[in-house]
This record gives sequence, structure tokens and C-alpha cells, in this order.
Amino acid sequence: MTLNAFHARLEAAATAHGSLVCVGLDPEVERFPAHLRDRPDAILAFNRAIVDATADLVCAYKPQIAHYAAVGAEDQLQDTIRYIRERAPGVPVILDSKRGDIGSTAAKYADEAFKRYGADAVTVNPYLGRDSVEPFLEWADKGIVILCRTSNAGAREFQDLMVGDRKLYQVVAEKVAQEWNTRGNCLLVVGATYPEELADIRARTGGVTFLVPGVGAQGGDVRRAVQAGMTPGGGGLVINSSRGILYAGSGEDFAAAARRATLELRDAIDAARR
Amino acid sequence: MTLNAFHARLEAAATAHGSLVCVGLDPEVERFPAHLRDRPDAILAFNRAIVDATADLVCAYKPQIAHYAAVGAEDQLQDTIRYIRERAPGVPVILDSKRGDIGSTAAKYADEAFKRYGADAVTVNPYLGRDSVEPFLEWADKGIVILCRTSNAGAREFQDLMVGDRKLYQVVAEKVAQEWNTRGNCLLVVGATYPEELADIRARTGGVTFLVPGVGAQGGDVRRAVQAGMTPGGGGLVINSSRGILYAGSGEDFAAAARRATLELRDAIDAARR
Repeated sequence: MTLNAFHARLEAAATAHGSLVCVGLDPEVERFPAHLRDRPDAILAFNRAIVDATADLVCAYKPQIAHYAAVGAEDQLQDTIRYIRERAPGVPVILDSKRGDIGSTAAKYADEAFKRYGADAVTVNPYLGRDSVEPFLEWADKGIVILCRTSNAGAREFQDLMVGDRKLYQVVAEKVAQEWNTRGNCLLVVGATYPEELADIRARTGGVTFLVPGVGAQGGDVRRAVQAGMTPGGGGLVINSSRGILYAGSGEDFAAAARRATLELRDAIDAARR
Repeated sequence: MTLNAFHARLEAAATAHGSLVCVGLDPEVERFPAHLRDRPDAILAFNRAIVDATADLVCAYKPQIAHYAAVGAEDQLQDTIRYIRERAPGVPVILDSKRGDIGSTAAKYADEAFKRYGADAVTVNPYLGRDSVEPFLEWADKGIVILCRTSNAGAREFQDLMVGDRKLYQVVAEKVAQEWNTRGNCLLVVGATYPEELADIRARTGGVTFLVPGVGAQGGDVRRAVQAGMTPGGGGLVINSSRGILYAGSGEDFAAAARRATLELRDAIDAARR
């Protein structure tokens, strides 16, 4: 099957940089190094430094929108994405917003992600059902990343409920792989914190790409996650780290520390793929 | 049980205005009357006219954030909420954003709703489980409106899956009413398009207040929805209409048309409660 535009872009970046690492851009000004904290454009300055330090080491960037919305920094999100285009051309941007609403509203959220921010992919919540995801799916060139088994402890509460002989997350996984992915633009969110579930979802969904949060600050084991979730070819994964990279250092050399943490993660993933 | 601050505010507005109507502020510039469409502050001007025309007829306003985010109009959302405070003091504002993410990010979304926009309540998606909702629940004075059985046709796809002897939405409803509502700040979203489910959820949750979208443009029958969903005392409901009110007229008299549509809905609800 030919890759859709998003997957082609993702694969090209992964190949060029020998990396399945996605850096999550979740800026928290109170955790920034002191010399940046008081700048009016602190978020943008911080993100630029992180992008400068990691542009040749990643397959994607994933800004999490709540971190911008909480402080009214949509303009700095927009400028960050523009900067990624300039500094890391070819590296796709996944807007992590986990949207989900009835169709007419979902269309507005798709506009937010793809028209306003020009993202290459967006995360979406499946609870409202297919008609709520369809306005995203219609963007055939983009990546639509659907929550399946999330990385948090509470994920079990509903996602593990037994529906007949399957858990709810397994129903979601199969639905996406078998019914929603007609345009080849679907991905799934599966947390690194749950390697058994990663293996289970891999078995149920063939070659669907997983966006895997939960390594680093959330404690997921890289080796176990990669071996459980990869396709037979050693791919099909985008491994996200946010806090583990962004806040690897807290001084003026934070970008160098972020680069080291990214390299380490890239190499740990690579070792696990062999 | 003493009402929490949000519920007290909601009840006071409902009593003062004899109304369970919530006006959904979902601005779509392309549907605005021609004389407003080209103004740079078209959204704010439109919303102000709607608020002016309905302030004495509603128990709440519910701006749906995608309609602002899609066009980069967060400032006009903020100004709209400020205007509601001025023109309709005491009428609570429910920010409809259906957020859901892991705890540390959910805290940022709670900041977005309550610190940035100063909303009285926010809508939340339960798919990620309790730890993803907890950062909202901690706001004891606010309303946390959890998606249960949504108004769209696709709601059935996951929400109606059988989990043992209950449907998923029934599990969510009982979980919220029995476990998450310890601070008395939880509400549930239940679509007017599903009166049987409204009755079922009412039976399972006692006096929990329902936010009920789906009348008007989505086709829900007001009489059936009210009779199915109300508490024995004829309350426990916030009936939302967005497009049915906002776009009741399309000319310069759109605000007067919106007022008539709001009055009609208020009276239809009132008749159904008796």
C-alpha cells in the first residue's frame, strides 16, 4: 500500500535521522531555566532552543496544546510550528489536542489543527464514535491519531472494560484498523507504560503506526515498549518524550542536556529494535 | 445536600428567569447576517447581540470553544465571557471544550477553563479515566460536565457497547454519580436525541444535573427529552440550543429572532415540566 502524505513524511524523517523519537513540546514556564522565564516570548525562545538542539535527531515534534492554551500563548504555538518548518523541514508536526465532539464541531477542530496551525497530524478521542472522527478522517493527507490505550494509570478504568470477549481498547483498535483506516491516515495512541497491551494491539492491527507516550517522566521502559510494539520490520512506532527531554537540564545549558537525552532515547530505541 | 457554588448559581439563574434554557454560543461567521460578517470583531458583536436579546431568558450560556479556536478568536471568546458577566450577572458560563488528557495535562486544561477564561463549568471526556478528570474535580466550586451519552448518531458505536449487563454509558453514569461526585460538582452530558437513555440515566443517577444538547438543529424533541430527563421536582436539566437560536433569523433582526426562539424553547420546556 502506498503511504499517505503524513506517513511518507514521517518515514522520510525517521530514515533521514535514524530515529523514532518524537519530542513533545509541552512548555511549562515555571520549569524553564531562569534566564528565559521572564521573557514575554519565553515559550517560543525555549521551543526554538529545543528544536535547534534536536532537529537532526527526531522523526516528529508533538506540541501539546493545553500548555499553550492555559496561558493564552496560541501565537507562540503558531510561531513554534513555523520555526519547525524552517529549522527542521520535512519533520512532521503532530498537534496533541485529543479533540472529540459531534460532527459539525469536529469539523471546526479539524480546521483548528490543519488550517490554523497547519499541523501534519492531530490526536483525537474516539468516545463519541465514528461520525465524530469522520471530519478528521476526511483529511486524507494528514495523520489522525486516535486514543486507544493511554499511558496513564487510570486508563484501565474504562479502556479495559470487557465488551464480550474483548476489552474496550481492543474494540477501538480493531475498529480503527479495520473500518476507519480506509484512507491509510489513522494511527493509534498506545502508552509505553503498558507493554503487554502494546503487543496485543500490534497483533490486532497489523502495520498501523503507534504514537507511544509514557517513556521518561511517566516511567515506561523503552526496551520493553519497543519490542512489544514494533512491526516485524522494526518500525511502526513514534516514541514520544516530553518532560524527559525538555527538562533534562535546568540551567543555561538546557538545550545541550535536551540533545543528550534525545540521543540517549534514540539509541535506546535503536538497540531495542535489533 | 448543600449545592456547590456552580449549582447554586445555576439554580438562582434558572429560578430568576423561570428557564432551563442554555444558549450555546457557537459562532460561525459565514452564517452571520451580512451586516456583521466583515467586521473584525464580528464574533463578539454577534455574541453581544445574542446575549442582549436573551439575558433574561436563560439559566446559562455555553460557548463551544472549537468555533473560536478554528479562527484564532480566543480574544473574542474572552471578551464574550466578560460581556456575559456584565450584561447577565449571575448567569453561569459553561465552557464546552470536551477536554481529556493525562493528569498533568488535564491540570493545564483546567487552568484554561477556569483561570484563563474564568468559566463556571467545563465539559470533559471520560475515556482516559478518573485520574484524567481529577484535576477538574478538584475545582470544588465549579461544574464538571462529563460526557455520558452524547447527542450524535455515532454515540451508539462505543457508548452502547455492553459491559457485562450494562452499557458503557451506564457504567460512566453510575461511576460519576457514585464515585466522582464527592464534591457535588459533577454533571452529565446526555443528548436530547435519546429520550430513553435520558430516562435510564436519570433512574441511575438520582439528582445529578444533565446538560442536554440536541434540541433544535439536531432534532431532539423537547417534550420527550424533558419528561424523560427531569427530576421528580421538574428540574435537574440544562437544555442547550445553539444553532436553533443563533441562526433563527439571518437578517438584521437576527437578535429578535433569537429572542423569539429562546422564548419558545423556554415555554416548551416549561409546558413539558408540568
